[in-house]
Amino acid sequence: MLVLDTDGYNFRGHVLKNRLIDYSRCSVLFKSERLRQQIYFLKEIDNLKQILRQTVLIADKRQENDAEHSWHLAMLVMVLSEYSNNSSIDLLRTMKMVLIHDLVEIDAGDTFCYDEEGRPGKVERERKAAHRLFNILPSEMTQEYIDLWEEFEAMETPEAQFAASVDRLQPLLLNLYSEGYAWKKHGIKKSQVIERNHHIAKGSTTLWEFAQNLIDEAVSKGYLIDE
Amino acid sequence: MLVLDTDGYNFRGHVLKNRLIDYSRCSVLFKSERLRQQIYFLKEIDNLKQILRQTVLIADKRQENDAEHSWHLAMLVMVLSEYSNNSSIDLLRTMKMVLIHDLVEIDAGDTFCYDEEGRPGKVERERKAAHRLFNILPSEMTQEYIDLWEEFEAMETPEAQFAASVDRLQPLLLNLYSEGYAWKKHGIKKSQVIERNHHIAKGSTTLWEFAQNLIDEAVSKGYLIDE
Repeated sequence: MLVLDTDGYNFRGHVLKNRLIDYSRCSVLFKSERLRQQIYFLKEIDNLKQILRQTVLIADKRQENDAEHSWHLAMLVMVLSEYSNNSSIDLLRTMKMVLIHDLVEIDAGDTFCYDEEGRPGKVERERKAAHRLFNILPSEMTQEYIDLWEEFEAMETPEAQFAASVDRLQPLLLNLYSEGYAWKKHGIKKSQVIERNHHIAKGSTTLWEFAQNLIDEAVSKGYLIDE
Repeated sequence: MLVLDTDGYNFRGHVLKNRLIDYSRCSVLFKSERLRQQIYFLKEIDNLKQILRQTVLIADKRQENDAEHSWHLAMLVMVLSEYSNNSSIDLLRTMKMVLIHDLVEIDAGDTFCYDEEGRPGKVERERKAAHRLFNILPSEMTQEYIDLWEEFEAMETPEAQFAASVDRLQPLLLNLYSEGYAWKKHGIKKSQVIERNHHIAKGSTTLWEFAQNLIDEAVSKGYLIDE
């Protein structure tokens, strides 16, 4: 039996044609349809490693990708959770959120956070991507992953607020320790960085205090423009 | 005050000379010595993104790095935990183990799993690396991270066994879906893959059954040598 692999969308948002999967072969490989869906999802998200961000790595100044970024965020959650404003956040759910929060960019692409022109349509692109990707999973898992992603986006629960804090703090760290590489390249101003990142305080006042010191340090070193 | 940054080892195992940090500057940036240690650790582990593995990515066949691999493992834990032989594993601890399990390779490098010559000395190199890296953290966190890493290495707890299962399964998936790229490059035999991966069964009999089907599929497609 030959059927269409997805619901019409695909990697990088282009409509798929003739991407046919022979499920009679699959039945040899997979014990159950459930396992096939899970493995296909894990295969599809390998593409997160292809999505480049504007931030560069400290050692060699190459652009970071979304999978590396997501791993680093999980490490920030692990190491810095004591600074969450809410002392009893669910660490596992916070970790899950940071691990999946950028998967939508497999279809929607990365929008540079200081790119005002790229913003319109971002929400709609990412919503479509979430539904395409998470629908690869068994149906009751689909809802769980959409819920997690929407919780992260809404930034209302303590877990989502702390996840958002580390999502903002991590590129600040890479920028500081790469001598402001991405900031200098794009001529970013201190006021833009404050505007973009001040909601770190919602998840952690301690980390926002640190971030402000970091931003001042970056200005003093000439990495950021202070107009 | 100028002091040595580390205990003598460094990124890639070379002894550091003259790597001096001016802590009087740091005191402006960091509210506490504790936060400084945590941030320095998070900065140091950015180097995990530099450690290349033999396995290649599905989309473009470039070598995967350890940070991407660790993120992917965390996703496997999230998606496939229902197949753990032990139905009540602690998911958060399992997740932490896969996130940190390869950090030692920042100093010790990646040893290709079918490289018999690279094996001697690996344990000692990695032990040294664990102590160098985790000692960057505040002291009571150092012990927590060394314990986690040693638990993973010992493969005795249900969490460590499931973590080891996904650590083996993930490269099998990438190999199958990249048309056996790394296997063909190194002339790997079916018997080597079985020998290397059969302990997937300790963490999950279901995933080992799937892995065996996957290996048979790889042989039938000519990705693996079946002597």
